[in-house]
Amino acid sequence: MPSSRPEFALIDRIRLAAGTSSRVLLGIGDDAAGLDCRVDHETLVATDMLLDGVHFVVDECGPYLAGRKALAVNLSDLAAMGGRGLASFVSIALPKSQPIAWADELMQGVIDLGAEWNCPVAGGDTNSWNGPLVINVAVVGETLQTQSTRRSGAKPGDVIVVTGALGGSIHGRHLRFTPRLEEAAELLRLAAPHAMIDISDGLSSDIQHILAASGVGARIEEAAIPVHPDVTLHSGLAGLDSEDRQAWLTHALNDGEDFELLFTLPHGEWERLQAEWRHPTPLTRIGVVTEGQGCMLVGNSGESVPLTAGGYVHQFG
Amino acid sequence: MPSSRPEFALIDRIRLAAGTSSRVLLGIGDDAAGLDCRVDHETLVATDMLLDGVHFVVDECGPYLAGRKALAVNLSDLAAMGGRGLASFVSIALPKSQPIAWADELMQGVIDLGAEWNCPVAGGDTNSWNGPLVINVAVVGETLQTQSTRRSGAKPGDVIVVTGALGGSIHGRHLRFTPRLEEAAELLRLAAPHAMIDISDGLSSDIQHILAASGVGARIEEAAIPVHPDVTLHSGLAGLDSEDRQAWLTHALNDGEDFELLFTLPHGEWERLQAEWRHPTPLTRIGVVTEGQGCMLVGNSGESVPLTAGGYVHQFG
Repeated sequence: MPSSRPEFALIDRIRLAAGTSSRVLLGIGDDAAGLDCRVDHETLVATDMLLDGVHFVVDECGPYLAGRKALAVNLSDLAAMGGRGLASFVSIALPKSQPIAWADELMQGVIDLGAEWNCPVAGGDTNSWNGPLVINVAVVGETLQTQSTRRSGAKPGDVIVVTGALGGSIHGRHLRFTPRLEEAAELLRLAAPHAMIDISDGLSSDIQHILAASGVGARIEEAAIPVHPDVTLHSGLAGLDSEDRQAWLTHALNDGEDFELLFTLPHGEWERLQAEWRHPTPLTRIGVVTEGQGCMLVGNSGESVPLTAGGYVHQFG
Repeated sequence: MPSSRPEFALIDRIRLAAGTSSRVLLGIGDDAAGLDCRVDHETLVATDMLLDGVHFVVDECGPYLAGRKALAVNLSDLAAMGGRGLASFVSIALPKSQPIAWADELMQGVIDLGAEWNCPVAGGDTNSWNGPLVINVAVVGETLQTQSTRRSGAKPGDVIVVTGALGGSIHGRHLRFTPRLEEAAELLRLAAPHAMIDISDGLSSDIQHILAASGVGARIEEAAIPVHPDVTLHSGLAGLDSEDRQAWLTHALNDGEDFELLFTLPHGEWERLQAEWRHPTPLTRIGVVTEGQGCMLVGNSGESVPLTAGGYVHQFG
């Protein structure tokens, strides 16, 4: 691979800063990393490629938050499988116009978040080119229990629950969000969710992923959807008067990059989960899984309309 | 993540074509993949990011060979650890100017090579943007034996051996090479190599990686280096007369992307390995590991000069 001396020095600095873990047998510096995996857990692998100008604007957010986000989105994926990370693998294409210190900052964003979650950088690939910044992070992790919690397990009668609140993440949360690893661990300790996903495309899209994979339908109650206060940061929505509720809902359903957990669980477990839940992130019951297919959105006066992926605006326009 | 309908359809086609393996518990289509790993082997992870205009020119080689190379370089890394691949994870940034069929071709290059080595695509990330093509492949694999063969195990007295022949890979082999997985398996069956690496930067650089990691030196015999006939394809070197030998050597030492295996093993094992080696790829003894540090290149008349990474041209200029 093309490489230059400054890049070798960068790799040495990353190696020193990357941290370790008892599960990483061999980290940065060989042809591949060596991990200690367990047979009584599924080994999980998530990967995401983040592009300057698409997933962030690095001139606005800086390289540290870009690096942080590249790891965070993958940890969110592992949380949604009922898992956690063991090690990350970071590939970067650095614009030649940027100083090497800029790459150090980027890697520090990955390393710091990894240190919070015991998920050190164990490998990667460093390149420079004339194109924009590209970061790919692959995370290898494992399930907390024997099996992963998949999209495909939802059953009619299940309660549909979401962590936190939705909408307006573009105003900063999409860069600074905390991956819901603690919440996933608490959930698995207290209950047995049938299906789970993280909200990356938006509730209106991601609920469809669970429904399609499970072969079921759903009813979501409009009034129950937890709207994040950040939606009021959208231009023209600062008024907070009641007429804006529909506009807020549009954002809560479609903005995406909330990185909250969306899961279904047996009706009987919901009451107990609510009673025993101690984590500060709130849980909200937003609907139920039904027979059939597709998702209906039930309004305040009981009328219902089909909820299509990203199509809420048009349904209520 | 931003996505469009054609990309969802692409992912569906990839999922159908990707193939399966008993070690992949959950493939494309959830938040993460699930693999069945073993405790009595090290789990290996390699990753490489390939950039259009840096690692290939896609207008010249086409998307199929670009995709193939992106997996092949990682399988080469796993071979160099004494391992094999279990599943690949493919992230792509597609130029918006290209038709979606172009992405199918690229993925077919990954899928076909994966099928040859029982290493199906089990996940990834698909994006489109206004930049050039970017492909990142991460491969999760495992060691063939309990432990990996690392760069750091070379010992004074070891014989240094290389598979195949070196130089001139830019004329096509860098896209079409066969990762040396069979050769690594045969080697581990017959002997116990102390250290191993794949030749990606060039022999003159990669030998230094073994020496530095192992804290040893080496003597390489100039006359023993196997020069690939492809070096004669370099402009001005078609003559094949004896005066070109030095120029060929320069290429064999520095061209890189040969993706051959370079390994060291106890002196006593070399005779036996030679005698029992049945694989068609030849093995060549090119030197010995010494006390001290650095690598000396020994010429035909016995004189020796320091071999520096990528610096052969200057030493003999």
